[in-house]
Amino acid sequence: MTMPPRIGVDLGGSNFRVAAFAGGDTQLATPIEVHKEPVGEARDPASIVERIASHVERLATPYLGARPVPVGIGLAAMLRDRRGTVANSPHLRWRDVNFGEQLKARLGPHYALGIYNDVNAIAWGEAVAGAARGSQNVLAVFVGTGIGGGVIAEGRLVEGASNCAGEIGHVKVRWDDAAAPCACGSRGCVEAYVGGSYVAARIAKEIAAGASPATVALAGSIDAVTPGHVDEAAANGDEWALALWTELAPLLAVALGNAIALLNSERLVLGGGFLGRAPTLYEQVLLSLAVAAPAASLEPLTVVRAELGDDAGLVGASALAAAGISTIQ
Amino acid sequence: MTMPPRIGVDLGGSNFRVAAFAGGDTQLATPIEVHKEPVGEARDPASIVERIASHVERLATPYLGARPVPVGIGLAAMLRDRRGTVANSPHLRWRDVNFGEQLKARLGPHYALGIYNDVNAIAWGEAVAGAARGSQNVLAVFVGTGIGGGVIAEGRLVEGASNCAGEIGHVKVRWDDAAAPCACGSRGCVEAYVGGSYVAARIAKEIAAGASPATVALAGSIDAVTPGHVDEAAANGDEWALALWTELAPLLAVALGNAIALLNSERLVLGGGFLGRAPTLYEQVLLSLAVAAPAASLEPLTVVRAELGDDAGLVGASALAAAGISTIQ
Repeated sequence: MTMPPRIGVDLGGSNFRVAAFAGGDTQLATPIEVHKEPVGEARDPASIVERIASHVERLATPYLGARPVPVGIGLAAMLRDRRGTVANSPHLRWRDVNFGEQLKARLGPHYALGIYNDVNAIAWGEAVAGAARGSQNVLAVFVGTGIGGGVIAEGRLVEGASNCAGEIGHVKVRWDDAAAPCACGSRGCVEAYVGGSYVAARIAKEIAAGASPATVALAGSIDAVTPGHVDEAAANGDEWALALWTELAPLLAVALGNAIALLNSERLVLGGGFLGRAPTLYEQVLLSLAVAAPAASLEPLTVVRAELGDDAGLVGASALAAAGISTIQ
Repeated sequence: MTMPPRIGVDLGGSNFRVAAFAGGDTQLATPIEVHKEPVGEARDPASIVERIASHVERLATPYLGARPVPVGIGLAAMLRDRRGTVANSPHLRWRDVNFGEQLKARLGPHYALGIYNDVNAIAWGEAVAGAARGSQNVLAVFVGTGIGGGVIAEGRLVEGASNCAGEIGHVKVRWDDAAAPCACGSRGCVEAYVGGSYVAARIAKEIAAGASPATVALAGSIDAVTPGHVDEAAANGDEWALALWTELAPLLAVALGNAIALLNSERLVLGGGFLGRAPTLYEQVLLSLAVAAPAASLEPLTVVRAELGDDAGLVGASALAAAGISTIQ
């Protein structure tokens, strides 16, 4: 019998992706088939369950037989356990939803189903088939609108006691009375300083107050200024842009360095849309990291950019399910 | 044939301990036999190797046969790899010593030898047979003269890429120009604020400058003041002592909370001589931790005091070797 494919699903805030990868070799990063569509408005659990199940069945039915077909779902949600219970997902507007149980019941016994935090799935994808291939100790950090992380230690994905490990965006970099409020309800989280949406808001405010005509000139108009323009202005030596990056880079670097001190990772994978469009900031973070992490922790460390882009979560979720990691019994 | 015992060795800055535990059940915390003596002055690698080997042979010889006898050594040293190469040990005055290879060569093929960082061995001991028995995700932090940590994630000891994971004492809690210098050569490490020897030095200086007659009264004289007296003074409401503990507790709590955010541990084991003798500070750290760690990370977390005391390293090192973890091939 033909080896069944492994199937990955990535359910984010905007996009819904499903992909099939050839079974057997988890290091394959290129799908046989990939389907992408907007998540759309129907986000109730029953609709999502049905939608995933119908795509999965379409891809897997020719292979159904003795072996269960691995299906891994990466979910933009805070999970509560390893049975796919969603504690909270602002993107999906879900709270306390037994998503894993529902999908498992709908799919039936022919599938090995695993539900993963989306960033964990991405981190695992980079670790098995991307920028950290071959490394047993990996920290992957993605700086997009927010900051998320995934940890691989001693070759294992660290999901933690309640499947919410890797929350590096919510490590504290300030804890005085003036620490910035974070959307998580706490204060002083590194995300509240260096997360893309927080940085964009701060830039908009300071530009509106008259900062950096050079940045505005690069953008064309005040309303068009993005963090990318600020990064370009910093590269050009603009004083305001440089000061902003010089303030933010050490905060991210300290969060990274402290994690590295704890984990002694071999690879630090950095990705995410905001950091990807801010090469000057990226370089400053690396410079700050060289001071922020212990020398002994830096010695075996290589910092690499994420490689797999949008496919990382599909690769990782399907590979996790294929390896039987946290699949629902 | 009788199951051979597992042997643990704890080589610290002051004490040299060897213990045999009944083979088979790694959860046993009580040794069959334990030997303790001062490390003494002869600390060159050859002397230490000979001393360990002769104790190990005495305990193991009756059992030598088909099965290798597990021997785990917990070493107060920074290791470089999983073959017992010591990068640096101020206690032993070693630098770049291939200790594992030497001991392996001396013992011969009848032993399964593993060399571990002492704090990792202690953490593993607490995880298999002590305060964190049964937990798969554990952070153990010991606040003595310095601050050391050990991480168990998904049931595995995290040794990291170069066997120096768990360095929570050297996470940064300050990174401005005034950040305190640490003996590690860096600045702003949590150890440089809350490590026992740093706290004691600060107390001595402030007391000498006239602070807190109430603390001096508890101690009897200025020279007799210990952190324990300061803790008692804080419990009594002494303003200076309270202010000091109120300054230090959040620093340790942030280091702990940030680690918990990353690891989503089920148990946080706190131990070490300094924290053990400062119950008021301990309580303040717990209160600060409730703010410093993300709510979702606190939910599954139980904070417990270390249970095994001086035996933890012997228990852990022997159990690691018995489980074949990082034993030298």
